[in-house]
Amino acid sequence: MKKTKLKIKESPLFWPAKMKSGVLHVLDETQIPRKIHYIKVRSAKDCVKVIHDMKTRAFGQFLVVLNAFLLELIKVKPIKKSDFKAKEKLLAKIQSIAQMLNKSRPTFPFSEVTEIIVRWAVMAIDSGLDVKQFVRKNTQGYLESVRYKRLDRVQRIADLIEDGDCILTHCNVSGELAMAAHLCKKNKKDIHFFATETRPYFQGAKLTCWELREMGANVTLIADNAIGSLMADRLVNKVIIGSDRSCANGDIANKIGSYQIACVAEAFHIPLYALTQPSDKIRNGKDIPIEIRKADELLRYEGYKIVRGDVDAFYPGFDIVPHELITKPIPISVGQDE
Amino acid sequence: MKKTKLKIKESPLFWPAKMKSGVLHVLDETQIPRKIHYIKVRSAKDCVKVIHDMKTRAFGQFLVVLNAFLLELIKVKPIKKSDFKAKEKLLAKIQSIAQMLNKSRPTFPFSEVTEIIVRWAVMAIDSGLDVKQFVRKNTQGYLESVRYKRLDRVQRIADLIEDGDCILTHCNVSGELAMAAHLCKKNKKDIHFFATETRPYFQGAKLTCWELREMGANVTLIADNAIGSLMADRLVNKVIIGSDRSCANGDIANKIGSYQIACVAEAFHIPLYALTQPSDKIRNGKDIPIEIRKADELLRYEGYKIVRGDVDAFYPGFDIVPHELITKPIPISVGQDE
Repeated sequence: MKKTKLKIKESPLFWPAKMKSGVLHVLDETQIPRKIHYIKVRSAKDCVKVIHDMKTRAFGQFLVVLNAFLLELIKVKPIKKSDFKAKEKLLAKIQSIAQMLNKSRPTFPFSEVTEIIVRWAVMAIDSGLDVKQFVRKNTQGYLESVRYKRLDRVQRIADLIEDGDCILTHCNVSGELAMAAHLCKKNKKDIHFFATETRPYFQGAKLTCWELREMGANVTLIADNAIGSLMADRLVNKVIIGSDRSCANGDIANKIGSYQIACVAEAFHIPLYALTQPSDKIRNGKDIPIEIRKADELLRYEGYKIVRGDVDAFYPGFDIVPHELITKPIPISVGQDE
Repeated sequence: MKKTKLKIKESPLFWPAKMKSGVLHVLDETQIPRKIHYIKVRSAKDCVKVIHDMKTRAFGQFLVVLNAFLLELIKVKPIKKSDFKAKEKLLAKIQSIAQMLNKSRPTFPFSEVTEIIVRWAVMAIDSGLDVKQFVRKNTQGYLESVRYKRLDRVQRIADLIEDGDCILTHCNVSGELAMAAHLCKKNKKDIHFFATETRPYFQGAKLTCWELREMGANVTLIADNAIGSLMADRLVNKVIIGSDRSCANGDIANKIGSYQIACVAEAFHIPLYALTQPSDKIRNGKDIPIEIRKADELLRYEGYKIVRGDVDAFYPGFDIVPHELITKPIPISVGQDE
């Protein structure tokens, strides 16, 4: 693959978890835009916690999952080539980390990533290699390749955007959309973004608006309720969303609200582009398990209880956008999904 | 018209502004469900303020507009039959109250109501009647007739609901839907409601959930983002919404978000019922002026600024649901719109 050299400032959301001297610094996305704070994570168990508590999300989770293994491998003492018992013990440890991570949130295909790590460990044992070094090097290389693939996609998103475009986005497309906006600006494309609030976590209001502005883009915040009105009034001409999971048939799972955006976009023949994941383990959207999150996340806001009494709330975290409603997927690497 | 005798507890939202000893008590809907507080309103100017500050909304506004005239008429000294100057002065006062009220919020057809009052005043002068008494009596009679028409509609809504129904509603259908739910319960109909939060004012979370529960109905709160997912999963089989304004062709203006609900309902062939207004002054939805409210109402929540910096926000308060997407209107009186 061609390594894109991107001469733009990197968005903090593009790579929200960075290893520094054996400690993983995870951007606490729940504090943005009030505070840019990095949580110091030192173990796989802490990694599960930041994922479960939604301190990080989307691509950040992927980074945290991979780095969880690196954090634990740092603690492992060198193993002698002949010490098969120690090697098997390390494999068991890697397997148990994988299992713990897989269970942290249901909608994400964490197992597809953790399986790779486990496979490397098995491979190293079978080939008589240093398990610790082999898994570490491969994981670091894997992360690096993902980095270049994403930078390449930033360029492809920018190419898709035309001068004069008014783009609706939902939730937060970790770094890539904002960096594409920056590229467009450098290329003198005059574009405008509308960002949905994205209740209940306000990722659109808190992350996307902040990130787009940091990258010098024009952005207007709207309520999730306003997408129909916006499209009816022809105030947007493109929709670009991310995806949390992709299927073999092209269906995607994305933040709750994506499906209704796609429905209304279809009614108005507004093209919808989705940044897709490199996943084909699941046949179609119906088979993706949808995470039902705690009612309290809807009932409370910043500690204040919106609804009095014991009202029920139903909060599916994601919905499925069927492939028929996706005008064109933008896969992580060219060739995939196309 | 048959006067329906409704043997159910009245919802506080059914008649949220009541005159007591010359003072109008307006239910402060922004404090529900934390506190049931009535604002004491003593002048037409105060009436404009409670409307503008959205302390009351929808039907409450209609009540406040009519009562604004009653509040001012109370202060008027008796006028001698021959004192034409005093009569003309009173007419001018009524006209200026009307103008002030008309300007309080753009989307509502306040002028259609205030014109009636002005007409009565003119009529009284032309016929040599006591202007003060004539306008007061007529206004009170008008309010009473509206009350019976609304109670009648509660019965018609209840008749429409079938055993086993799962009904999606948006924003708040001032009193009537909750009272219909109460009637259904008495008639042993097992029904369930899903209420949208209705950002940014949370009328669904704060008013509808509270009101339905007060009336003994089952209700589940959802994010505005979840309507697509709910319909795709066939968790609702009917949609019932109100309307803030109706047109001659059947289009309605209602709380922002109504249009996208109607779009998705159409895609899934889920019937949508709208409680319509007795208005035919406007030909179609395109001619309804949509109120664009202050960005700050979206950017702040309970004083806390969600978005840092000077982010733009666009907050149209309403959208238009075209008549093609309304399965059946439920007009305020039988015959109208049918």
